Amino acid sequence: MIRLIIDCFGGDLSPQANVEAAVMALKDEKTFPDLSLILTGDAEKIQAELDRLSFKSDRLTIEHAPEVIDCNDKPTDAIRLKRESSMMKAIRMLREDDTIGGMVSTGSTGALVAAATLRVGRLKGVIRPAFCPVLPTMNGGIVAISDSGANVECNPEMLRQFAVMAARYLEAVYGVKEPRVALLNVGVEEEKGDDLRKQTYALLKETPGLNFVGNMESRDLLSGKFDLVVCDGFAGNVLIKSTEGACLQMLKKLKTDISSSLLYKLGALLMLPMFKKEKEFMNYQNYGGSVLLGTKKVIVKGHGSATATSVLKCIEQAYRMEMNNLNLKTEEELCALLAEKSEQKTEVDN
Amino acid sequence: MIRLIIDCFGGDLSPQANVEAAVMALKDEKTFPDLSLILTGDAEKIQAELDRLSFKSDRLTIEHAPEVIDCNDKPTDAIRLKRESSMMKAIRMLREDDTIGGMVSTGSTGALVAAATLRVGRLKGVIRPAFCPVLPTMNGGIVAISDSGANVECNPEMLRQFAVMAARYLEAVYGVKEPRVALLNVGVEEEKGDDLRKQTYALLKETPGLNFVGNMESRDLLSGKFDLVVCDGFAGNVLIKSTEGACLQMLKKLKTDISSSLLYKLGALLMLPMFKKEKEFMNYQNYGGSVLLGTKKVIVKGHGSATATSVLKCIEQAYRMEMNNLNLKTEEELCALLAEKSEQKTEVDN
Repeated sequence: MIRLIIDCFGGDLSPQANVEAAVMALKDEKTFPDLSLILTGDAEKIQAELDRLSFKSDRLTIEHAPEVIDCNDKPTDAIRLKRESSMMKAIRMLREDDTIGGMVSTGSTGALVAAATLRVGRLKGVIRPAFCPVLPTMNGGIVAISDSGANVECNPEMLRQFAVMAARYLEAVYGVKEPRVALLNVGVEEEKGDDLRKQTYALLKETPGLNFVGNMESRDLLSGKFDLVVCDGFAGNVLIKSTEGACLQMLKKLKTDISSSLLYKLGALLMLPMFKKEKEFMNYQNYGGSVLLGTKKVIVKGHGSATATSVLKCIEQAYRMEMNNLNLKTEEELCALLAEKSEQKTEVDN
Repeated sequence: MIRLIIDCFGGDLSPQANVEAAVMALKDEKTFPDLSLILTGDAEKIQAELDRLSFKSDRLTIEHAPEVIDCNDKPTDAIRLKRESSMMKAIRMLREDDTIGGMVSTGSTGALVAAATLRVGRLKGVIRPAFCPVLPTMNGGIVAISDSGANVECNPEMLRQFAVMAARYLEAVYGVKEPRVALLNVGVEEEKGDDLRKQTYALLKETPGLNFVGNMESRDLLSGKFDLVVCDGFAGNVLIKSTEGACLQMLKKLKTDISSSLLYKLGALLMLPMFKKEKEFMNYQNYGGSVLLGTKKVIVKGHGSATATSVLKCIEQAYRMEMNNLNLKTEEELCALLAEKSEQKTEVDN
């Protein structure tokens, strides 16, 4: 049995979207043959949603938590002061109950990262957890970014860990074989970039079991030539937000331009199915959440405005990570890498 | 008389595009009432282009330089070994001849930055020169990025100088009044980001004559809400390349999707003028080059594949910078800032 917690509050469409996703997951026994869910949040409101959906199951329990952490709460204050919130209740259960594998939340990112790091803790060997979202590429594939913003200051060993953790994640959850790992840099040549990039390049090159293919310039993110891009959280955040921003701004401009002429409107009408597909393609709701890699329990952060479909995707991500024992395997691999490193160091010291 | 050098080799369309742009500039006495140009490169080839265009003028001279620096040359080797290249000849003349105001090149970026910094030198007070390209925004305006890649490692005072230099540049060349300056960051709140961002935020806030409006997330680059984005060269490079990359990849995808159906093709035909406008809007050839701010002489780097129109824009950028005495004014302002800073320091020390 895989047990997961759904934090039912804190998102724009909470608790409806979160509860509905939980119900959808429990009904889909083909995708989730072995799932049991715990919903945290205001019990009355959650029950009202379940009643609305006429759903009842012994694989679903509610854990009452009257408070909600919202995005105006300062993360460190939130986790200290809002102990009875749906998110902190979930975090506490994760820490205390070994039979629970992970959680999904659409609440405050800052509070979730802080709580995950301070209360749930890191896997053995992990320096810092990393956020790893996945984007669609122009040729129908996907590309992951690790780290997309959990750590604005990084060292080379952290970046190597982001690479290893995300590569194993892509294999386990998306079935990508030997993911092509690239280092985000200002040019493709090996000697490009600052010290962080140069040292990370050298480390990635010698990491066993990693299909490192070299540097990548940000313009190639969606090209389909790479499965995983490794970067510090500052650059990763700039990368993902500018890519999403440019696509959205362009679509918006197209829309404005089309509405300026009757002829264009007619043309657009003929192309309606295509535009709909395009919009669907860029709809982040279809791509689930951002996984926080490196914490002791599986943690998936859904978008603040996640719909039920999107939360369902998050549940699937968490389920597959647990099903594949991703955390256990990652821990073993990272510990082996650290052991090797300290051996090398000892050799040098001798 | 404003005297500028055109490095006629090193670009994909060199020397044709470069020579043609020089001729166009000299013919347009309304935009350039007071211009004289020096063309560096293989004299025979340049003369052949001039003959092809049947152009002759006593405001144009050729300086023979048989070698060409290409993008495979390592920058530091190139400036040391290819002394007889069109670029290094231009750099030498810039350094030695006080009557020459600046240069335009479509050659190797790395070599140009290295030569500009090492041979031409910085303005008094400038810690490091910065690249400052300009992009079109979705509402028909422009936005500048400073630095877009000349410095991958920066400190807060450097970022403040990038802001001041670029703000004065926008005023002088594009007539932007009190440019709205933003700091690229992972969130809009003041306390966001790493130490570099936090310290830079504090510095920008207290800089006189700077219209600092706070942090900007990369997704808002093209929104039209900002005139200038300040960042270290690594983040700036990620920002500009991912924005351009996403726009181009999207256009490419639209094109592929359109060609998949006869109905879509018909629709696109009706929208042809719009698509053409869209393509023109995103065509970087229309936006001139990236200015290297902070060097003793004006240096404009055109795109490697710059057409004549694009090189002409670069000449216009250089001309306006010279006409407005931008370097002199920038130098005075930066020196005043540094003096103020050392005064504050002395006060603290006392």
